[in-house]
Amino acid sequence: MNQALITPEIPKGTRDFLPADMAKRIYVMEKIKNTFVNFGYDTIETPVIEYAKTLLGKYGDEGNKQIYSFDDNGGRKIALRFDQTVPFARLVASNYQNLPMPFKRYQISRVWRADKPAKGRYREFYQCDIDIIGTKNLLSEAEITRVIYSTFNALAFEKFIIKFNSRRLINDIFASLGISKDKFTDVLRILDKLGKIGEKATENELGKLLPKQSVEDLLRILNIKGSNQEKLKSIESYASKETIEEVKEYLDLCDSFGVPEKNLILDISLARGLDYYTGIVFEVYLTDIEIGAVCAGGRYDNLCSLFSDKEFSGVGVAFGFDRIVLAMEELGMLKQIKLNAEVLVTYFDKESLNESIKIAKELQEAGINTEIYFEPASLGKQMKYADKKGIQFVVICGPEEIKKNEANVKIMQIGKQKSIPRTQLVSYLTGFKKI
Amino acid sequence: MNQALITPEIPKGTRDFLPADMAKRIYVMEKIKNTFVNFGYDTIETPVIEYAKTLLGKYGDEGNKQIYSFDDNGGRKIALRFDQTVPFARLVASNYQNLPMPFKRYQISRVWRADKPAKGRYREFYQCDIDIIGTKNLLSEAEITRVIYSTFNALAFEKFIIKFNSRRLINDIFASLGISKDKFTDVLRILDKLGKIGEKATENELGKLLPKQSVEDLLRILNIKGSNQEKLKSIESYASKETIEEVKEYLDLCDSFGVPEKNLILDISLARGLDYYTGIVFEVYLTDIEIGAVCAGGRYDNLCSLFSDKEFSGVGVAFGFDRIVLAMEELGMLKQIKLNAEVLVTYFDKESLNESIKIAKELQEAGINTEIYFEPASLGKQMKYADKKGIQFVVICGPEEIKKNEANVKIMQIGKQKSIPRTQLVSYLTGFKKI
Repeated sequence: MNQALITPEIPKGTRDFLPADMAKRIYVMEKIKNTFVNFGYDTIETPVIEYAKTLLGKYGDEGNKQIYSFDDNGGRKIALRFDQTVPFARLVASNYQNLPMPFKRYQISRVWRADKPAKGRYREFYQCDIDIIGTKNLLSEAEITRVIYSTFNALAFEKFIIKFNSRRLINDIFASLGISKDKFTDVLRILDKLGKIGEKATENELGKLLPKQSVEDLLRILNIKGSNQEKLKSIESYASKETIEEVKEYLDLCDSFGVPEKNLILDISLARGLDYYTGIVFEVYLTDIEIGAVCAGGRYDNLCSLFSDKEFSGVGVAFGFDRIVLAMEELGMLKQIKLNAEVLVTYFDKESLNESIKIAKELQEAGINTEIYFEPASLGKQMKYADKKGIQFVVICGPEEIKKNEANVKIMQIGKQKSIPRTQLVSYLTGFKKI
Repeated sequence: MNQALITPEIPKGTRDFLPADMAKRIYVMEKIKNTFVNFGYDTIETPVIEYAKTLLGKYGDEGNKQIYSFDDNGGRKIALRFDQTVPFARLVASNYQNLPMPFKRYQISRVWRADKPAKGRYREFYQCDIDIIGTKNLLSEAEITRVIYSTFNALAFEKFIIKFNSRRLINDIFASLGISKDKFTDVLRILDKLGKIGEKATENELGKLLPKQSVEDLLRILNIKGSNQEKLKSIESYASKETIEEVKEYLDLCDSFGVPEKNLILDISLARGLDYYTGIVFEVYLTDIEIGAVCAGGRYDNLCSLFSDKEFSGVGVAFGFDRIVLAMEELGMLKQIKLNAEVLVTYFDKESLNESIKIAKELQEAGINTEIYFEPASLGKQMKYADKKGIQFVVICGPEEIKKNEANVKIMQIGKQKSIPRTQLVSYLTGFKKI
């Protein structure tokens, strides 16, 4: 008699990933990670469980509600990581003396949010972050821009734009339009929704806060078209010389880094959150697919202010891993991704098994991912398995092949079989790998 | 005025990892993962948060107490992953139709246990598992043995032994000594502690359960010395022919797989847990360092019995990642591991910056991990940074070098500086990488 079975289900907003999904996700993650590493970023790791006091109060009221928190057996308040930035700040606050400073780090791991699940919105998902902290030099903003460009390039995206803006530029423009400082935050909040709610609604919302003239001027400025240089020229009179120079210097550095002009666009309406960012801010969009920002971030003034008296200015961006995978999936960019096994060696009977093991061992040692079928079975059954697993070559090794001192290689993609002298088998299959 | 600062601390039994630790951990993890992949294992991923009902009751009373569980905002009982086996079973029960069968998978991820923290025992730690499910063929046990051997080999361990035993062999011996079936579990429980409590205490414990003669016979059998074949010969009369043949066949297969005899030792006292395992069981020990088992597992009969009527027999082992890293650390096997950045390009002034960026870009595109120093600084300061980060080469690119159309390369390990014509810089540094 069986016990009552437990329904095998998982919490809403979480996901299981089978090997075919994992192969794609690992491919994307490796490309991203390798780009970060190529620019000299190292990684750190923080616990998934933090003290609740470390996280609560850092993400606003909405964020607080979305933090998974609970009491552990000792009655201590524990919470699941909500993002990678706060734990990074906590780590830096207690370890900065052991870190190279300035410090560049990447971090790719999961975070948890008790949010309402929807398409592309999960309760458990990955973040990929890079940050440079401990320097205010604009070179950091430019390097991060280049890393963004190189990452989307490495993933083979052809069409993407890096929108940027300067928080100082916005502040200058607001000031020159006579908007008082106490209204900056509210105006920014409205501008942040411009893309979503449209110009008419934005105008109405702004009208409740500002005189008609200011609203008109502001919208006219936000609508300025042209190249980055042309835009800067048009708004020169609304901003300080210093601010304009900073943006120009940033653009020059990006140019030195080889970021093409067509991929980098000054968007004066980009506000990117509220109090956290203080300098250049970024948002990256794919122009082939409507999926929202796939990467975002900017310059902040003081990473660790809640944990330490020491000041760490920095620049950081987060890549939306799940959104990027989703976009690549929908654009058909992940069709070629294969599972790990490259070769299956057959298993027909105990007599030929030794030879199958020997072949597998030689191939594995030559760096070819190889497995032997698990038990004696018909060729058809073994082929079906190879097919299901996306294996590229089946080495048929039966009594007949052994007698003739050869192996039959079935190339799965074209369905053709080739007889290879046993001594040339490894080099034959290694040759394919090199192509 | 500052707000009150929050002490930057983490829960007991959890850890932060800085870049130098991470480089070592990633090195070990990649070696393990690549070995699994080389044998055709694919990976899956399950959520960190599961419904509590999925986990509770699967790990005994002690385990139940150690599961982190809590109510989510919707009042659902949630728990943190306690091991990788139960979530794997849950995944297989609901997805077996979409998986290649038999199914081989590896999984490397974190688990959480509200255990008492101690040296080498954490509340958040990594497990590295491989399993082959859906076949009862002994080839699986032999392949897993080979994967264990290859893994410790790949990690460059010179001295390790894979202890194995057969649960059937134990059962046969017990039966032939007249031990009644209802006492098997208790006797196994005592034998499991043999290594810890010593022979005298084991004898006393067994004496409370069994007649004197049985205890003497049992201890004599457990003490049989010699090669695997000699041991089998000596206990032949206590076991069925089938059982002995199975062990012999397993040994033959391991031999075909190239597992050296000196690394594979039949240990008749190895019981490895209680009801879960049903065939060959394994435990791996490092002989250079006392750190307990670094890998363990065996054949089980029915992975998914709690979630499905479908039967999945399998073999699986878990590698103790944190323990392996600890052992390698203590044995000095991780001294050579470097951080990611290979080259630092200097930044002296705005005039030479463009050339620095250009050099970095060329090196990065040649696959060399390169960074530029963050801001204009003295050579000493930049060297100190390179040193702290374990960077191998510093490319000195100042006004003088630019004028002469060359670059100065400082080879950090030997402290020597070399002047290289600018056009040969990339090939010079690429050449080092190939060595």
